[in-house]
Amino acid sequence: MQQDLQNTLALLSRTPKALDALLRDLPEAWIFRNEGEKTWNAFDVLGHLIHGERTDWMPRARMVLQFGESKTFIPFDRWAQARESQGKPLPQLLDEFARLRAENLEELRAMNLRPEDFERRGRHPALGIVTLSQLLATWAAHDLTHLHQLSRIMAHQYREAVGPWSAYLGVLQCNGHSS
Amino acid sequence: MQQDLQNTLALLSRTPKALDALLRDLPEAWIFRNEGEKTWNAFDVLGHLIHGERTDWMPRARMVLQFGESKTFIPFDRWAQARESQGKPLPQLLDEFARLRAENLEELRAMNLRPEDFERRGRHPALGIVTLSQLLATWAAHDLTHLHQLSRIMAHQYREAVGPWSAYLGVLQCNGHSS
Repeated sequence: MQQDLQNTLALLSRTPKALDALLRDLPEAWIFRNEGEKTWNAFDVLGHLIHGERTDWMPRARMVLQFGESKTFIPFDRWAQARESQGKPLPQLLDEFARLRAENLEELRAMNLRPEDFERRGRHPALGIVTLSQLLATWAAHDLTHLHQLSRIMAHQYREAVGPWSAYLGVLQCNGHSS
Repeated sequence: MQQDLQNTLALLSRTPKALDALLRDLPEAWIFRNEGEKTWNAFDVLGHLIHGERTDWMPRARMVLQFGESKTFIPFDRWAQARESQGKPLPQLLDEFARLRAENLEELRAMNLRPEDFERRGRHPALGIVTLSQLLATWAAHDLTHLHQLSRIMAHQYREAVGPWSAYLGVLQCNGHSS
């Protein structure tokens, strides 16, 4: 299906609540274990989503509308969360993500985008020309990629504990492509 | 890590709220589209989780405690949700899942399992001998496998819409191993 602003907003507005319901006050064993060296844990994923709210999605949407293809997006730092989130309590990160997301969606709604705006073009540092519609669709799909990753990281912690059932659990067959 | 009843309960008790936060009142485009012929949509996944609450996890836990290896578990019907859930509104399924899960966890807590109980053995129709601990760990990991699948099904709907970003979105590389 095509990117549709109402569908995109509906998903983007739900992600903070879904992560809150899943992660808040969950025992640390689920939050701070990862999938092995140089992989992320649930805490890192949340930090990464927060960094995206600050530096990626809306800043890029603004750039498309203001500068079009003439200015290249600033590359996204995929390891920034290590600096920004370390040591913060998880509930604080959940609150921060919810607040930033709500502010960003308020700004997006206030842009009152017209159908033709979605085809406006910007310049990605590696991918080249992209449209505003693709950027918004990616924002939503990026939430889902990290929900997918998060469920895989958490399931990994019970990989041995499930015994022979591991053969039936698809998430344990996932080879970590959604880092 | 080993299966730990508190960790398992913590996760199992959160899944209904997480799915509720993600799916309730979401536009139908996210709920009723699947990944192609003979694949599940979000509605089917929820129906499958409900069927598991009714026929799989606690009935099998009871069987382990009552009959040990002497009685084989009843095979789980992976397509039952088509009969049981079809035509029901999604909010009703979310309520049903939350209610059944809460009842099941109440029963599990009331069993007051002692450390040695977790090693009690039952007989799976295909996998053979399994322990109560493995069954409980699988219940939790099964929630995660379907959260993983759900995020993949939903992301699939924006596969074209994201344009060149599809290369960066791990969830779009997932080949559907978690059906």
